Amino acid sequence: MERHFERELETLKERLLLMGGSVEAIVLKAVEALRRLDTDLAQEVFADDKVIDRMELDVDERCVRLLALQQPMARDLRFVTAALKINNDLERVGDHAVNIAGGVLRLADQPLLKPLVDIPRMATLSSGMLREALDAFVRRDAETARRLCAQDDAVDFLNRQVFRELVSFMIEDPATITRAMELVLVARNLERVADLATNIAEEVVFIAEARVIKHHAEADPPAADDEFGRS
Amino acid sequence: MERHFERELETLKERLLLMGGSVEAIVLKAVEALRRLDTDLAQEVFADDKVIDRMELDVDERCVRLLALQQPMARDLRFVTAALKINNDLERVGDHAVNIAGGVLRLADQPLLKPLVDIPRMATLSSGMLREALDAFVRRDAETARRLCAQDDAVDFLNRQVFRELVSFMIEDPATITRAMELVLVARNLERVADLATNIAEEVVFIAEARVIKHHAEADPPAADDEFGRS
Repeated sequence: MERHFERELETLKERLLLMGGSVEAIVLKAVEALRRLDTDLAQEVFADDKVIDRMELDVDERCVRLLALQQPMARDLRFVTAALKINNDLERVGDHAVNIAGGVLRLADQPLLKPLVDIPRMATLSSGMLREALDAFVRRDAETARRLCAQDDAVDFLNRQVFRELVSFMIEDPATITRAMELVLVARNLERVADLATNIAEEVVFIAEARVIKHHAEADPPAADDEFGRS
Repeated sequence: MERHFERELETLKERLLLMGGSVEAIVLKAVEALRRLDTDLAQEVFADDKVIDRMELDVDERCVRLLALQQPMARDLRFVTAALKINNDLERVGDHAVNIAGGVLRLADQPLLKPLVDIPRMATLSSGMLREALDAFVRRDAETARRLCAQDDAVDFLNRQVFRELVSFMIEDPATITRAMELVLVARNLERVADLATNIAEEVVFIAEARVIKHHAEADPPAADDEFGRS
């Protein structure tokens, strides 16, 4: 049983990382579709999101099964419950990519307002944060996770910069308003992706500090097993 | 042990409902602060969000403890894992209220563009959806949940209507652009609140249909206990 549990836990990690890869890719693809105003690529994003939805169901099932299989010990229990939440976050990233792809369809009949600079940068940063946060989770690496929480500011900064730049476009030429608004919303979606990555990173840090918080738990297992990130 | 578990499960439900109440209230308060351009009320939103963050930690701990206490049977296990995710969603609603309150601070030095009509309506709808989704969850009421998923369209419709109206304001008078943009973002945040409520409702429906999906689970418990919404 123990061996079986370990194997299932390993598979869960692999699936989460696989899903993380898909989620990272879909963000980059959505922004690439925007950069090229490529509606075919935008359509791919919709299809990819459906795959991510199925991945979410699969990871979810695996988590519930792991909990049902046997009562995992403290750190494994925390890991699985965190995986449930992270899974939810990853699925939501797909939704943001879909929002961006929707923008591509609405923008595709006119040239882009300007060559995109900050928006692709936001996409690279936020999708990179996602990957790192997920790696940190699987490796139970609280240090990396802590560093990532700080990176969120860089994406927020770019979001505000994009906002200001686009407002100035709109003021200068009201004919650009609809197109500029779409780009503001794209930047918002990317900012949310970074938020979700930060959420995941915070979860990793939280688990690392769970000893303090779990102080109140009645069903506290032996302390030696209650630690995270020191395997 | 069994009795203890049942008691803890009841408390978990109460806490979730309590948190739902706070989350519903914070959305309405943020929009009321906007309607009145009341920065004091906006500050309250920031404080309320901190309380919601603590509620999230509490609910999270309760879920983990319930899982650790004893291996819950199929439907209870599903309920607790769903509670973990819903908890995460509720906390995120608080973040959206905070975003709206931030907008109030930025808007407060100028009169509102226009009396708000659709935005308060979106707030009422989306926070009502939240309450109903949470009630449906606690009562394991898949029918209500299914109905809620359809309501999301009404909020999306209002969001698009707000968007169009504000774009026309901006085009008519570029001096309104910054203020109009803030309102567009408020509407977006409310649309996300409705999305999160829909998420919760979908979770309730999903659990109700879990029998089909759980077909593949190795650790399938007796079927009689595997049902949801027929207690």
